[in-house]
Amino acid sequence: MRAAIFGGPGKITVGERPDPVIKNPTDAIVRVSLACVCGSDLWYYRGLSPHDLGAIGHEFIGTVEEVGSEVRDLRPGDFVVTPFTYSDGTCVLCRAGWFSNCLHGGGYGNHGIDGGQGEAVRVPFAGTTLVNVPGSGHSDKTLRSILALSDVACTGHHAAASAGVGPGMTVAVVGDGAVGLSAVLAAKRLGAGQIIALSRNPARQAVAREFGATDIVEERGDAAIAAVHDLTGGLGVEAALECVGTGESMSTAFGIARSGGMVGAVGAPHDVEVPIDVVIFRNVGLRGGVAPARRYLPALLEDVLADRINPGLVFDFETDLDHIVDGYEAMDDRRAIKSLVRIAVSAESGAGLAQTAHPRMP
Amino acid sequence: MRAAIFGGPGKITVGERPDPVIKNPTDAIVRVSLACVCGSDLWYYRGLSPHDLGAIGHEFIGTVEEVGSEVRDLRPGDFVVTPFTYSDGTCVLCRAGWFSNCLHGGGYGNHGIDGGQGEAVRVPFAGTTLVNVPGSGHSDKTLRSILALSDVACTGHHAAASAGVGPGMTVAVVGDGAVGLSAVLAAKRLGAGQIIALSRNPARQAVAREFGATDIVEERGDAAIAAVHDLTGGLGVEAALECVGTGESMSTAFGIARSGGMVGAVGAPHDVEVPIDVVIFRNVGLRGGVAPARRYLPALLEDVLADRINPGLVFDFETDLDHIVDGYEAMDDRRAIKSLVRIAVSAESGAGLAQTAHPRMP
Repeated sequence: MRAAIFGGPGKITVGERPDPVIKNPTDAIVRVSLACVCGSDLWYYRGLSPHDLGAIGHEFIGTVEEVGSEVRDLRPGDFVVTPFTYSDGTCVLCRAGWFSNCLHGGGYGNHGIDGGQGEAVRVPFAGTTLVNVPGSGHSDKTLRSILALSDVACTGHHAAASAGVGPGMTVAVVGDGAVGLSAVLAAKRLGAGQIIALSRNPARQAVAREFGATDIVEERGDAAIAAVHDLTGGLGVEAALECVGTGESMSTAFGIARSGGMVGAVGAPHDVEVPIDVVIFRNVGLRGGVAPARRYLPALLEDVLADRINPGLVFDFETDLDHIVDGYEAMDDRRAIKSLVRIAVSAESGAGLAQTAHPRMP
Repeated sequence: MRAAIFGGPGKITVGERPDPVIKNPTDAIVRVSLACVCGSDLWYYRGLSPHDLGAIGHEFIGTVEEVGSEVRDLRPGDFVVTPFTYSDGTCVLCRAGWFSNCLHGGGYGNHGIDGGQGEAVRVPFAGTTLVNVPGSGHSDKTLRSILALSDVACTGHHAAASAGVGPGMTVAVVGDGAVGLSAVLAAKRLGAGQIIALSRNPARQAVAREFGATDIVEERGDAAIAAVHDLTGGLGVEAALECVGTGESMSTAFGIARSGGMVGAVGAPHDVEVPIDVVIFRNVGLRGGVAPARRYLPALLEDVLADRINPGLVFDFETDLDHIVDGYEAMDDRRAIKSLVRIAVSAESGAGLAQTAHPRMP
């Protein structure tokens, strides 16, 4: 099969990789229709985080092609979305909802597991990992939003959920990447009353507004902290959502958090220091991490299918597998918020795509 | 009046300080009967945290002597316990329950406010700060427990509450000082199923057992982390309560926390680094801080008066005001867990004390 191949920092090519086959009875093979490029892929692309050479990508939707003998509730032809980590669904951490910390789970595109940026993927623990998408003939808009649920929408939701965002709350989001924008959407969905997006980019501000931001702060650093205090009666926000992962963004998040508030953090950390004095003397908590997307996916999928949320708006660049490097470069240059990659649209592999919709196989 | 006077690191004397008088209509004057020495006082005594010269101490119980014109629900003769910070009870942070972060509040024994280690205290915002102790003729055992509610029992409770301790949960407590032991008690009170106390001191282990510890770990550092994993099926604990405030104790707390778990931290931080990789990649949250004791006090007081909890067991050294330095030294040498200081036992000032019990003034 053809797939994106990571050859080290700055090197993404497209080439041949072995066709995936069922190795364990709990595996399924998924033929990928849509994939995308993650902000964390950029860390690898830039050489700032380690990544195995070879397969890459961890977000995709597609059609089940084959299932192992122990896979229940999934059949060939099912259209599915995957959370960006696979999980057995039965260990004590999965049972507690921490699917992304599954004792036997892992991520795609590393450690010998196929990447999502390719034509097909062997999915371990498929029955407890993949989420079946009901219905057929979904519009391209809907499919883009379902693809967003694979990681970015769930990760934004995790920031908001970790910070305890609830009805009427005052929230600010640090970071206007796809995750930050998704965190705005999540805060809105959870009922936040005031949502302040920190962004100096007009296109991203527009998406933030569309997703529910009530205020935009263009300043950075101390000026941003002052601006957020101005917008919140001098108090700061009850929930500060940190969606970048740098020392400055974490410092800003704690700076804008109200005493007794929470920082919900989902940015992959690079040189981050937690201001423990703020934690202790202002009672500002910190929670977040690698999102347990499998926990959040069903409810978010329901909202997507009912057209209550449109997380796919984060995709503002589109390409195909052969040109996937363009998707990386557009994000690396900050020309794109997030790049969608059309892998296949044939009748065989594109089940669920509007242009190739066909009845679900029995 | 006579009071303890902080003269700099290592210097605690007893001398004369001005008798407190009502300055604001929301003030009350409290005649102190029992006070105590806090672990944080030791930081000052050791020169490791800054403290104004002069008044010191922030935990006390006593009798209301005089109230300002705007103090409601308190009368001279009322027997009261104070949380270790005073708060207006009306600002947005107090209304949200964050009394220790009150926009107009503060602490005793600093910034010109009388200390608790003296014969009398002017209490600002007395009506919203002090908690009236119902009944009279309380036993010395009960009074010691009420005194513990002034700080240490509420601070231990804050560690457990911040970590979300609930029925059946697996908890470990780092620190066998009075706060750590109080955190054991709090975890038990909140229904924890397994409570692991880290302590190598037999006397403190005994109190931990009495408070509800199910297991004791004597190891430190990596060996402690391994021991806690051994006791929890290799998983670590759902809630790790950090009650010391050093880099090593925080590192241990994150090391013993299960993925998806919480660190509840209440130790005053000294050279603490938060392992952000554990926060993000293992989804271990961090919450805690200066306890909003006023929020917790009423429920804990009810449990003390009903003899359901006995937090006063942390007091294993007793002295009087003249010899208060002995109380500091006993704690500094780790001969004592926590030192109680009998300030007054006269009929006039000792209302509520069993040996001088008298009917409440009308």
